[in-house]
Amino acid sequence: MAEIKKVTACLLIVGDEVLSGRTKDANLAFLGMELNEIGIRMSECRVVPDEEDVIVAAINEVRARYDYIFTTGGIGPTHDDITAACVAKAFGVELHRHPEAVEIFLEHYAPKDMNETRWKMAETPIGADLIHNPVSRPPGFKMENVYVMAGIPRVMQGMFGTFKDTLEGGDKLLSRTIPTHAKEGDMGKPLKELQKNHPDVEIGSYPFFQANGGTGVRIALRHPDMARIDEVAEDVIALIHDLGEEVVDEG
Amino acid sequence: MAEIKKVTACLLIVGDEVLSGRTKDANLAFLGMELNEIGIRMSECRVVPDEEDVIVAAINEVRARYDYIFTTGGIGPTHDDITAACVAKAFGVELHRHPEAVEIFLEHYAPKDMNETRWKMAETPIGADLIHNPVSRPPGFKMENVYVMAGIPRVMQGMFGTFKDTLEGGDKLLSRTIPTHAKEGDMGKPLKELQKNHPDVEIGSYPFFQANGGTGVRIALRHPDMARIDEVAEDVIALIHDLGEEVVDEG
Repeated sequence: MAEIKKVTACLLIVGDEVLSGRTKDANLAFLGMELNEIGIRMSECRVVPDEEDVIVAAINEVRARYDYIFTTGGIGPTHDDITAACVAKAFGVELHRHPEAVEIFLEHYAPKDMNETRWKMAETPIGADLIHNPVSRPPGFKMENVYVMAGIPRVMQGMFGTFKDTLEGGDKLLSRTIPTHAKEGDMGKPLKELQKNHPDVEIGSYPFFQANGGTGVRIALRHPDMARIDEVAEDVIALIHDLGEEVVDEG
Repeated sequence: MAEIKKVTACLLIVGDEVLSGRTKDANLAFLGMELNEIGIRMSECRVVPDEEDVIVAAINEVRARYDYIFTTGGIGPTHDDITAACVAKAFGVELHRHPEAVEIFLEHYAPKDMNETRWKMAETPIGADLIHNPVSRPPGFKMENVYVMAGIPRVMQGMFGTFKDTLEGGDKLLSRTIPTHAKEGDMGKPLKELQKNHPDVEIGSYPFFQANGGTGVRIALRHPDMARIDEVAEDVIALIHDLGEEVVDEG
């Protein structure tokens, strides 16, 4: 196989409520899996508070480093929703009322009901394109490689669905997991050698503890080519047998 | 009340498996709440891959910025467990077998069973103190303000319990939540003014959507002094009444 084409992403979760433990994030796991399906690797995630300087610095740091940046949270109508303003500041542009967003709100609200607070949700950095919201109307937006979405998982997932097909992925990582009751402490050295001999395949080792007291380890192999994974899997299975253990059938 | 003493923390979650969505992190919410109880504010969280350069850079960036750094994950015996080596590199010191950790392993294993892989779990950066593991034995460690723990929530929680009482918190943030069916779009402007007039109290606004179709918003007030929270709460309740709405009893 030719060199692996790696396309990377970073998720920026904006919200004091996630840091305090009040709200449990569900967006990282969703996006990690969805992006992998299209060949994009979630490479970092940051949870940041509702503080302008922290958010602006994080946006500028990660948008230079990764191919795609996704943000969730902080795009509602209240004073603590500052993601749009922070993205504008990070890009050095002003906010404006996006004409398409204005239309979306005027389809739903009489102009007299469109107060200052609701108009805030129509604001995007100048130059941004809207991300439509098929769930609850107020849109997100895309500014260069930064995709700004709602924090509520159902809304975020709806927004993601509207642009998922436009993302350009690289080689999709496939994976195979080999579970065994062999001890991680016995697997370590041969696994390390295996990784050294096959640097193209990512070899991960995840210990598990069962309710019945059983312990063991799941060896995960990741590579874009399943035939290559299966080759290395044979070596993993052989070293499990060398330890007098078996591969476990986890159904 | 005198000036608020703010003590900050950052959580660094190490692991490809959290980024890929394969494993859902449960440590941020736990630590966010536990730390708040002792007056330490979780101020940022980063999920980083099993890559040395990313981890080392992140450690050095956040340990300079926050009072306490906690890491979870990457301290097992296999080649993909590189947190200890990364902390050593970030601090510019070597790894060594920590004498106390050696004792812990020799209490459990015959010296002949202590292979290279298991000894890896006894390694800490030179100068680190052990964090004991009351759940599954292999210890974590503390290097200056960086606390290195296991990723498995039950083990992490056990480790945290061993040093929680030694952490020095600031003023503990108390909170009060005021739920209402008022619309966030109507609350926005008066809430913004309220925040401006009471900058010492953090005012958060969290919309909710009920299964029965009801919508509304929870206004959260945070401050170390409950009497101060209650003062501002009166203003919040008054503005809800001004909108012809009521505070909802959520039991």
